Amino acid sequence: MEESLKTYEEYFSQAVEVRMRHYEKEGRLQHVMLSHQFSISLMEELFDIADHVKEMTRKPNGIEFLKSLLCHKKAMLYFTQPSTRTFLSFLTACQMVGMDTGEVRDPSLSSEYKGESQEDGVRVFSSYFDMIIMRDPKPGFCEYMAYLLDSTGRSVPIMNGGSGKDQHPTQALLDLYTMHRSFQKTGGIPKKRYAFVGDLLRGRAVRSSVMLLSQYKDVEMEFIAPSSFQIAADLEEYLLSQDVNIHKTDNLESVISSVDCIYMTRIQDEYDLSGESNLIDYSKYSLTPDNVSRMKKNSIILHPLPRRHEISPEVDADPRAMYWRQLRNGVYIRAALLLYVFNVAHRLKEY
Amino acid sequence: MEESLKTYEEYFSQAVEVRMRHYEKEGRLQHVMLSHQFSISLMEELFDIADHVKEMTRKPNGIEFLKSLLCHKKAMLYFTQPSTRTFLSFLTACQMVGMDTGEVRDPSLSSEYKGESQEDGVRVFSSYFDMIIMRDPKPGFCEYMAYLLDSTGRSVPIMNGGSGKDQHPTQALLDLYTMHRSFQKTGGIPKKRYAFVGDLLRGRAVRSSVMLLSQYKDVEMEFIAPSSFQIAADLEEYLLSQDVNIHKTDNLESVISSVDCIYMTRIQDEYDLSGESNLIDYSKYSLTPDNVSRMKKNSIILHPLPRRHEISPEVDADPRAMYWRQLRNGVYIRAALLLYVFNVAHRLKEY
Amino acid sequence: MEESLKTYEEYFSQAVEVRMRHYEKEGRLQHVMLSHQFSISLMEELFDIADHVKEMTRKPNGIEFLKSLLCHKKAMLYFTQPSTRTFLSFLTACQMVGMDTGEVRDPSLSSEYKGESQEDGVRVFSSYFDMIIMRDPKPGFCEYMAYLLDSTGRSVPIMNGGSGKDQHPTQALLDLYTMHRSFQKTGGIPKKRYAFVGDLLRGRAVRSSVMLLSQYKDVEMEFIAPSSFQIAADLEEYLLSQDVNIHKTDNLESVISSVDCIYMTRIQDEYDLSGESNLIDYSKYSLTPDNVSRMKKNSIILHPLPRRHEISPEVDADPRAMYWRQLRNGVYIRAALLLYVFNVAHRLKEY
Repeated sequence: MEESLKTYEEYFSQAVEVRMRHYEKEGRLQHVMLSHQFSISLMEELFDIADHVKEMTRKPNGIEFLKSLLCHKKAMLYFTQPSTRTFLSFLTACQMVGMDTGEVRDPSLSSEYKGESQEDGVRVFSSYFDMIIMRDPKPGFCEYMAYLLDSTGRSVPIMNGGSGKDQHPTQALLDLYTMHRSFQKTGGIPKKRYAFVGDLLRGRAVRSSVMLLSQYKDVEMEFIAPSSFQIAADLEEYLLSQDVNIHKTDNLESVISSVDCIYMTRIQDEYDLSGESNLIDYSKYSLTPDNVSRMKKNSIILHPLPRRHEISPEVDADPRAMYWRQLRNGVYIRAALLLYVFNVAHRLKEY
Repeated sequence: MEESLKTYEEYFSQAVEVRMRHYEKEGRLQHVMLSHQFSISLMEELFDIADHVKEMTRKPNGIEFLKSLLCHKKAMLYFTQPSTRTFLSFLTACQMVGMDTGEVRDPSLSSEYKGESQEDGVRVFSSYFDMIIMRDPKPGFCEYMAYLLDSTGRSVPIMNGGSGKDQHPTQALLDLYTMHRSFQKTGGIPKKRYAFVGDLLRGRAVRSSVMLLSQYKDVEMEFIAPSSFQIAADLEEYLLSQDVNIHKTDNLESVISSVDCIYMTRIQDEYDLSGESNLIDYSKYSLTPDNVSRMKKNSIILHPLPRRHEISPEVDADPRAMYWRQLRNGVYIRAALLLYVFNVAHRLKEY
Repeated sequence: MEESLKTYEEYFSQAVEVRMRHYEKEGRLQHVMLSHQFSISLMEELFDIADHVKEMTRKPNGIEFLKSLLCHKKAMLYFTQPSTRTFLSFLTACQMVGMDTGEVRDPSLSSEYKGESQEDGVRVFSSYFDMIIMRDPKPGFCEYMAYLLDSTGRSVPIMNGGSGKDQHPTQALLDLYTMHRSFQKTGGIPKKRYAFVGDLLRGRAVRSSVMLLSQYKDVEMEFIAPSSFQIAADLEEYLLSQDVNIHKTDNLESVISSVDCIYMTRIQDEYDLSGESNLIDYSKYSLTPDNVSRMKKNSIILHPLPRRHEISPEVDADPRAMYWRQLRNGVYIRAALLLYVFNVAHRLKEY
């Protein structure tokens, strides 16, 4: 068995569809790695669980029942890429279903200084905990760890909490869950126009959400960005191959009054190599009470947060602003995912 | 609503009495911000709750009952100013009443590097948690956050765990609680002489405790410090306006045998601008077995801790040394405050 | 009482047998400080508790029962010497028996910058928690703290999680527990040959384990290391005084096929003063599928982890490789120790 272990490079030379199958066990999700893993039917199952969880957290005895469901499980939160928001969202999701947690949030505290490989480090976590929730700056690191752990015969589920510039599947899920809830009375996610605004090249949240959204019928997508930050060629090709109706523009004003959803993002200048973000006229890619007033009445504004200046704080009070609700939805959908992965979601009916 | 939001400066141009009223809801404390919020009757209500809590922690089933009271609530401990002691005191108070917790103890781990405003950061916490316990070096930051959060219509209680050089209301409460318990058999807090020794200018603990103490009848206060570290002019004025009998001196020996309580503090030289603390003869503002032996038999020694050389370790064994007990009282009174704010203290009778 | 307090130097001028007695209370272990504290009969009692704990963690209701046993106790994890592995092992052991925890893992977050003594710092923890689990780079610091705390009349149990180059008693316990389990069908720990390989001079794990192992009947020990990293003279003398049959060599190949257990260690070059580790030919002190194939069929390979190159990852799949199991045994034996110290192990029978 050991002889056949693939190197990092060999592993990623496989197509995503092949890798995806590694992350299943007995026909169910074992590791949460890629947006590609979420079909519409699986998403709807998760949305339904999340709705139940949300409902139950309204009352003390609902909260106590939820906390009994996974009180025999423990999760390791391994965040070598700092992220207060995603970290706390996973932490509170774990607490919501009763899981104990351990954490490493600062890579300098780890054993690596003693020369241990990160592979061994992750294997240590799998010896102590029943699940590893991981965020790492190296693209594909989570996937490769899941593959190695599976090969040891003593694996635990791993959840990708954001890897590199690449994938952030639980962010995509919470984005879609928020669209799902917001459009419940207006026909749901299909047949609507979605605008994505800002740094479409480097924001992994957009990339992951667009992948999920493209599965729905008759969605139209507007990509609004300076040309140097437009969506990557591979994503565009993929969308065209899926027959998604897409448009690219650098003019937010031209579409603002006709879309059902505006997904704002910040310019990710921490990835700048030579200050390319400085050349952008940010005001062209921002929302203020003035241009928001031209949006459709039932439309919604999303943002993965943190924001800078791309949405002015005065917009927060507008009923179309859904980004704070989106943030809270993240906890419910992550709790739903925990219940799903440990196969206890059916017990919600006992309540 | 949003239009009328006050700036930080506008907000603090209001009198403290006006701001205080913002922190109440339905006639009860909602946010714990200022020592000014604690009237004698509210303090006595809290002391009574704390006494019950302390009593119940003596037995395993008392501990388990306490932990059931707030097991459906979660608190965020947001400590951007490091403090092991206060942090752990709040943490164990939360655990005592069954609350789950999340924490940020190192500001460099937060999202701020991504350009997020601290206001948004706090709003994130309020989305995940039912309470925010906050310590921040910026004066008034907690208050302003409470004001902003309230304006969003989705607020949670905030507790000030120490802000700037300014306020530390829960420290003041635990100081008074320790005086209350220590003087239970000798007539209580009123009609006694209290000495405050050390850095009276920059120690926020002294400032907050003096405010609370000044409400009691016929208390006398001695302020013993080098002239450059004597109490601030505004505090002195306030005390005079309250008809408190105060004296200032730099001579500890002259009063040591006549006071009922000595509240020691360390010189806060982390606030020094140009080494002004180096000019002080510390030995004049210190307690040793020698001068403690001249104190009244039923008098007490308090200290907010951490200490340096102002109390010699040999004093710890003296029955008048109350500072370690004071530390433990901090957990009971903070647990009492949690039960009070979430309005479940009446359930203590069920036990 | 205070007058008679010993200084650090005076304290350690006492023999280890004298100090050991300080750590007992009513004939039972109070503080877990030294390997010397574990007789064969106490170890076997702990192994038995650990076996029960391990068994119970297989089922959700076993896990829930375990978590009820110490849910009224709280532990402080005070790790001023970083160690993800030992930290998480103690953390999950605490969670396993239901204890709440607080932690300091980064000394720079502590109050020491305010000039507080570490003694006062530890006393603060003992005011908030029912146990202190401590790892500190200063040799003997844990012991001295236990002594000081006891003198205050308000002590809590302290567990040494590794101190200096010196002692790591719980690591030794988990090593022996793994030998005990591995040799259950082949006559147990006595009458076997044990090889220790690598940095025998500076690895505190080896030192502690050898002490425990030397109590068993007819064990033989091979010490395999470059001469500059052979076992310390005092340890050798001790073993000879115990009539242990020992051999020293720098030739792993000469003994590999005849031993029952190989205990591998990494070269601890973080303790290098002038790069002395660079002179070693590491390959001579390493295990690979090739030389492992010459080991006896029922022999075992241990390693305290983290490893570097001294065991190649291909060895992990060999049935003789016990180091990952050893890691998991660490949690069970530490949980057993918690139940033992708080005197609730007898309640396991209730399940």
